[in-house]
Amino acid sequence: MRKHIFNAGPCKLPMPALENTAKAVLDLNGIGQSIMEVSHRGKDFEAILDETIVLMKELLSIPEGYRVLFLGGGASSQFAMIPMNFLKTKAYYLNTGTWSTKALEEAVMYGTDKAIEIATSKDKGFTYIPKGYEMPKEGDYFHITTNNTIRGTEIHEDYTCNIPLIADMSSDFMSRPVDVSKYAMIYGGAQKNLGPAGVTFAIIKDTLIEQAATDRLIPTMMRYSIHAKNNSMYNTPPCINIFVVCEVLKWLKDFGGLSEMYKYNKAKAEKLYNAIDESKMFRGPVVKEDRSLMNIVFLLEDQYKEKEADFVKFCGEHNIVGIKGHRSVGGFRASTYNACSLEDVDALVKAMQEFEVKNL
Amino acid sequence: MRKHIFNAGPCKLPMPALENTAKAVLDLNGIGQSIMEVSHRGKDFEAILDETIVLMKELLSIPEGYRVLFLGGGASSQFAMIPMNFLKTKAYYLNTGTWSTKALEEAVMYGTDKAIEIATSKDKGFTYIPKGYEMPKEGDYFHITTNNTIRGTEIHEDYTCNIPLIADMSSDFMSRPVDVSKYAMIYGGAQKNLGPAGVTFAIIKDTLIEQAATDRLIPTMMRYSIHAKNNSMYNTPPCINIFVVCEVLKWLKDFGGLSEMYKYNKAKAEKLYNAIDESKMFRGPVVKEDRSLMNIVFLLEDQYKEKEADFVKFCGEHNIVGIKGHRSVGGFRASTYNACSLEDVDALVKAMQEFEVKNL
Repeated sequence: MRKHIFNAGPCKLPMPALENTAKAVLDLNGIGQSIMEVSHRGKDFEAILDETIVLMKELLSIPEGYRVLFLGGGASSQFAMIPMNFLKTKAYYLNTGTWSTKALEEAVMYGTDKAIEIATSKDKGFTYIPKGYEMPKEGDYFHITTNNTIRGTEIHEDYTCNIPLIADMSSDFMSRPVDVSKYAMIYGGAQKNLGPAGVTFAIIKDTLIEQAATDRLIPTMMRYSIHAKNNSMYNTPPCINIFVVCEVLKWLKDFGGLSEMYKYNKAKAEKLYNAIDESKMFRGPVVKEDRSLMNIVFLLEDQYKEKEADFVKFCGEHNIVGIKGHRSVGGFRASTYNACSLEDVDALVKAMQEFEVKNL
Repeated sequence: MRKHIFNAGPCKLPMPALENTAKAVLDLNGIGQSIMEVSHRGKDFEAILDETIVLMKELLSIPEGYRVLFLGGGASSQFAMIPMNFLKTKAYYLNTGTWSTKALEEAVMYGTDKAIEIATSKDKGFTYIPKGYEMPKEGDYFHITTNNTIRGTEIHEDYTCNIPLIADMSSDFMSRPVDVSKYAMIYGGAQKNLGPAGVTFAIIKDTLIEQAATDRLIPTMMRYSIHAKNNSMYNTPPCINIFVVCEVLKWLKDFGGLSEMYKYNKAKAEKLYNAIDESKMFRGPVVKEDRSLMNIVFLLEDQYKEKEADFVKFCGEHNIVGIKGHRSVGGFRASTYNACSLEDVDALVKAMQEFEVKNL
C-alpha cells in the first residue's frame, strides 16, 4: 500500500512519472532497449534531453539568453563551482541556514575579505529570513538560498538586485512561478520537486558564463562554459535521472503548470499550518511571514516533548512516513513538495488531531 | 522485441537487474515508497549502499585498507580530483587514447614539469599498448587507463609498480579478476559493466587518501577524505543509480563471480575476433596481443569502405544495435560487456557472414 510520503528529499514523486520510468527501465518507447542502455549520444536520449530543456523553459517562462544545464555532483558541487568560476573581487551571501552556510564556506576559501556574509538569521536559530539590510551595489554576485529545507523558512519573492543574483532553489524550485529575469543563475539538486537524486540543474545567464575567471586553475568539469558549450553532454550525463525529470515536468504541465501548482502548494501548507496553530500540543517555530510552503517544521510544546517518538510511531501506524525533523533541529518536518497531495496532508492533520485527543 | 545491444556505454544491462529496478521504481521491497522517494539517510537506502559495498569487496576480493566510494560527476571529474588531491611533485601518465589524454590534460594544469607522459601509442593511432618503457621509480602516482573504449585496446595484466598505481578501469572493471593490492586506486564511471550512467566508483587505499595535498585549495566535494569519512554520504548520493549497481553485482555473483565472467568474456571476444580475422571484408586494426575483450573495433577493408552505412543498416534489420564506431575512429565497434551474451555475439557474427556473402 502506497504511503503518505513527507520525506525531505529524495521525496514523493508523481505516480505517472514512476509508472513511465518503470516502463522505460524495461523498454524505452518499445525500442527493445532500456533507458539505462541507450547511448547518451543517440537520438533516443537526445530527444529526452531536448524535451526536458524545452519543458523547463516553457514552465518557467525562461527568457532568451539563459542556458538550462544538467550536471552531476549535487548542489554541493555548485557551492564550489560558483566561487571558482565567478568570485573575482567580492561576493555576498545571505546566510539563512545549513546549506547557505556551506555555500558560503566554499567561497570563503578564496579569502575572508572576498566572501561577505551580508546578513544572517543565525541569532534565532535560522527561524526567519533577514530583512532590512542594504542590498549589495557592487561585487561579482549575491548568493541566496530561497528555501531552507532544514529550518523551514522561505523567501517568498524574487529579489531585485543590481549585481548578479544567484539562487540555490534546491527545495522550492518549480513550486511557484518565478521571474527568472531577476536572477543570473538558479540552481539546485533535482531531488525535491524535479526528480530523483543524482542530477543537478543550473539555469544560467549567458552573460554570467562569459564573466568566468580566466586567471585561475579551473578543472574542465568545473567550468560552466564547457557544460554550456556541450549542452550538458561534455561527459556522459546521468541519463535515467534526466529521464525522470522529463516525466515529472510532463506531469507538472498536465497539472496546469506553475500557477496551478502554486495554488495547490499554498492550499496544502495553509491546511497544515492551520492545524499546527490551532493545536494545543504542537507549535511552529518559524516566523509566520517566512514560513516555507515546502518544509513545514513543527515541534511539540515543551510539556509534551517526551512524546516525540510516540508521534512518529503513531504516524507510521497511519501510513505516514518522513515526518521526523532533521537531526540538527529535532521535532517534526512535513515536506509538502509538489507531488505531495492534499489527501496526504489530510491524513497527517487527522493523525495530529487524533494524537492530541489521546495525549493531551 | 529486445535488441542485440552492443552500445559502448551506457550499454546492455542484465535483464534481472532491469526487472528488479522497474519493480523498485514503483515500490521498493513493498514499503509503499519508490527507490527514488526514500531518504538517503533512512534504513532502506542504507541497506542498499552497504550491500553494494560488501558485494564489490567480495567479488573483487578487495583487501583490508581500501575504501569503496560512490560519487557523482563521472570519471571526468576524477581526472581532475586525482591531481588536485595527489599531485605534489611529479606524476606519470601512460597515454593510450582519448580518455588517458583527457586525464593527463587535467594534471598538466599543475605544470608541464609535474605531469609526465611516460609513453604513448599515439604514433600508430593508439592501436597498441606501449611496452618496454621504464616504470616510474619515484613520484606521486602512475596513472593508466586499462581499457580504451574508443580504440579497442586493453592492458591484460595488473602492473607491478613501485609508486602508487592509479587505474581508470571505466570500461573493463568487473570483466575479469583483478589483483586490487597492486593498485592504490581504481576508478571509473559505472555505465559499462557496473550499472547506469550517473554514478562513479572509486576504490582507494586509505594510505593514498592520507597523502592528499594540504597546501592547495581543494573544494570540499573534491576531497576524497571527505567522501571516505562520510561513507559516500557527504551529500545526497545518486540513489537509484547505486540501487542498479547493487542489482548488477547480485547478478554477477549469481553468474559465478569474476572468474566465470572472465571465461565468458574471453569466449565472446574470441568468437568475434575469429570472425573478423577469417573475413575477407572486415579487419581489426588493433595489435592482436592488445585487443580489448570489451570493445571490439573492426573496419571494412579499403575496397569495401563505401559499404559502412549499409552494414550498420543491415545489422539494424537483424535487431543488432550499437555497432557504429566512435566518431573519431569510424568503422565499427561491438562492445561485448558482461551483460552482452554469446547469443548476441552469434547474431552479429551471422550478420557479418551474411553481409559478406551478399557483398563480396
